[in-house]
Amino acid sequence: MNVTIAGHTRYYRSVAFDARKNEVVLIDQRLLPHRFKLLRTRDYRQTAAAIRDMAVRGAPAIAATAAYGLAQAARAFRGTSLSRFEAHMARAFDTLRSARPTAVDPLNALTEVMRASDAGHTVAERQALALAAAEEFAQKSVEDCRAIGRHGLPLIQDGMRILTHCNAGWLACVDIGTATAPLYAAHAAGIRFHVYCSETRPRCQGASLTAWELAHQGISHQVIADNAAGYLMQQGAIDLVIVGSDRVIARTGEVTNKIGTYTKAVLANRHRIPFYVAVPLSTLDWELESARQITIEQRDEAEVLGAWGIEWDPVRARPKRGARHVYVRVANPASTALNPAFDVTPPELVTGIITPRGIFRPTELWQRRSELGPGHE
Amino acid sequence: MNVTIAGHTRYYRSVAFDARKNEVVLIDQRLLPHRFKLLRTRDYRQTAAAIRDMAVRGAPAIAATAAYGLAQAARAFRGTSLSRFEAHMARAFDTLRSARPTAVDPLNALTEVMRASDAGHTVAERQALALAAAEEFAQKSVEDCRAIGRHGLPLIQDGMRILTHCNAGWLACVDIGTATAPLYAAHAAGIRFHVYCSETRPRCQGASLTAWELAHQGISHQVIADNAAGYLMQQGAIDLVIVGSDRVIARTGEVTNKIGTYTKAVLANRHRIPFYVAVPLSTLDWELESARQITIEQRDEAEVLGAWGIEWDPVRARPKRGARHVYVRVANPASTALNPAFDVTPPELVTGIITPRGIFRPTELWQRRSELGPGHE
Repeated sequence: MNVTIAGHTRYYRSVAFDARKNEVVLIDQRLLPHRFKLLRTRDYRQTAAAIRDMAVRGAPAIAATAAYGLAQAARAFRGTSLSRFEAHMARAFDTLRSARPTAVDPLNALTEVMRASDAGHTVAERQALALAAAEEFAQKSVEDCRAIGRHGLPLIQDGMRILTHCNAGWLACVDIGTATAPLYAAHAAGIRFHVYCSETRPRCQGASLTAWELAHQGISHQVIADNAAGYLMQQGAIDLVIVGSDRVIARTGEVTNKIGTYTKAVLANRHRIPFYVAVPLSTLDWELESARQITIEQRDEAEVLGAWGIEWDPVRARPKRGARHVYVRVANPASTALNPAFDVTPPELVTGIITPRGIFRPTELWQRRSELGPGHE
Repeated sequence: MNVTIAGHTRYYRSVAFDARKNEVVLIDQRLLPHRFKLLRTRDYRQTAAAIRDMAVRGAPAIAATAAYGLAQAARAFRGTSLSRFEAHMARAFDTLRSARPTAVDPLNALTEVMRASDAGHTVAERQALALAAAEEFAQKSVEDCRAIGRHGLPLIQDGMRILTHCNAGWLACVDIGTATAPLYAAHAAGIRFHVYCSETRPRCQGASLTAWELAHQGISHQVIADNAAGYLMQQGAIDLVIVGSDRVIARTGEVTNKIGTYTKAVLANRHRIPFYVAVPLSTLDWELESARQITIEQRDEAEVLGAWGIEWDPVRARPKRGARHVYVRVANPASTALNPAFDVTPPELVTGIITPRGIFRPTELWQRRSELGPGHE
């Protein structure tokens, strides 16, 4: 998407590859929204570190980064020995996979690149095939998001007020995003609407990343406390909710997503507001019987007990002179916290799942498994 | 309640009066939870400033502060002229009332002290009567909270996990608190339970003040993101919700309280978890036909776009050397926010209203107006 810095607008992907320098080029998301800076990794170990240190986040973006990282490893190999090349690739594969071991998307991406590369008869062929596969993986990811936007576009009408949660935007993907795809499609189509970004404590991806994205596209939006969504719905001020998902259980239609998603779904249901979930097909889980089999990640207490931000002068509405990005403790110093990272929204609260193949009721996914299931992406 | 600082435990009220020095003694709540410091006001103007600058907060606490402030003004008067005394008192009354002009409790408190004082025949008598009335007002407020605790105690059983929102604790009252009163009564009775303090963005009174209160009483508790309440209820990990209220519409049973209360009530209702609201009788509004007549205060965007806290070293789990209390911007700098301060919970979501006279269904209040209504406090 376009990013405007100091009056200059340029097109970026959150993950890209510089073939000439053999570098993966990432937007360093740890510095957003306060600073826009590209991070170039010079070898696959640096690429793995960027994944591990969360310079890049979001399942599709991490997957593309891992894919490019493996192509980068292939192209860095010097020599013609296939057995040595294979040993080198196996090491790179393991290093990139273990950078974020619980995510399934990077593993799939790495497997795809590895398979494509294996078809080559020489090291040079394998190197070229690896890069082509990584580029194809990233491009497919972009096309999927574009298709989500196309299918979601009819949901958005002029004058609508739309609630989002967390960031399932282009930063989390390679481009366009999932939950944001219908918004960007509608904006491009000249439809006027307003977005409420729920801040998404504790890590505040809504306030920082989604708001940053929408601001750069010139889309009307406001940040709200997570607590304010219910009030706005009571006032009739929200017409539609669109969120992303980390994993949709295809068998049941259950949606796992950032903590607080369930709450928004319960509120939307009470107020009869349509609640949509936008995902690429890779987010559909065809294995699990139920979301009860998922262990909800419990994250560091510090996230709940404080906040990260830039030292700010509220009167002049700008960063303080020489401001640093700091962590402040908000909560009582002697208290502890509980920090579940995800929750599960049951299918009866979900109006529809927006996929690259169309919008489906959550319970419809399993019926259409021959069409949407693995091997049919 | 008792406060333990550096191993020393002492009993405090959030608002007290030092008759010898003619000073109102407040716990400066702007410095909590990071620093415990008393604020002594030397005249009624300083007392009004403490109210205006939010050194003291919570309707009952502000009301008691205003009452003491008027007594302080009376006792500072030098001379015997009743007409001059009356002019002086009228000025003090206006100054104290306008320190927080929308609140109804301080106005009631000031009126009570003024009426009591007016019964005196001399300046000296009026001065004494004013102080006696202020002390009586504060003591009555404490007795009300104690009665709320007595009536709420049977709701709390051994092993329960209880959710609170915001701070309706002793800091917001003179002592004991409203929503916290049943908790303190149960703790004193030896009942074991665990409290989840929802952090209550944007101002985080749950994470900072309620957690601070519970820690000083040795009550088991954890801070959670507001987003996590739904998840915990799904897990069967919450047995009871108790919150306070800024205003209960007696005619309808609607509960206005800190933003996010409605969300908790909707979630509790879905999971069939009892949802109680604890209030003194002064919080019951017998005038309004409906909560729709209330204008919801929209507060400063900065609250939502950032956070206040103390610079903290997360690794060593302590404040940084020379740490200051700072405001950090979390949200995208180019974005704006919407910040409604309160919401309204409809009576069908409220299991009961815990008052000093017992627990009532929200729709029962109006039927019992002859017993609970104005003039029967």
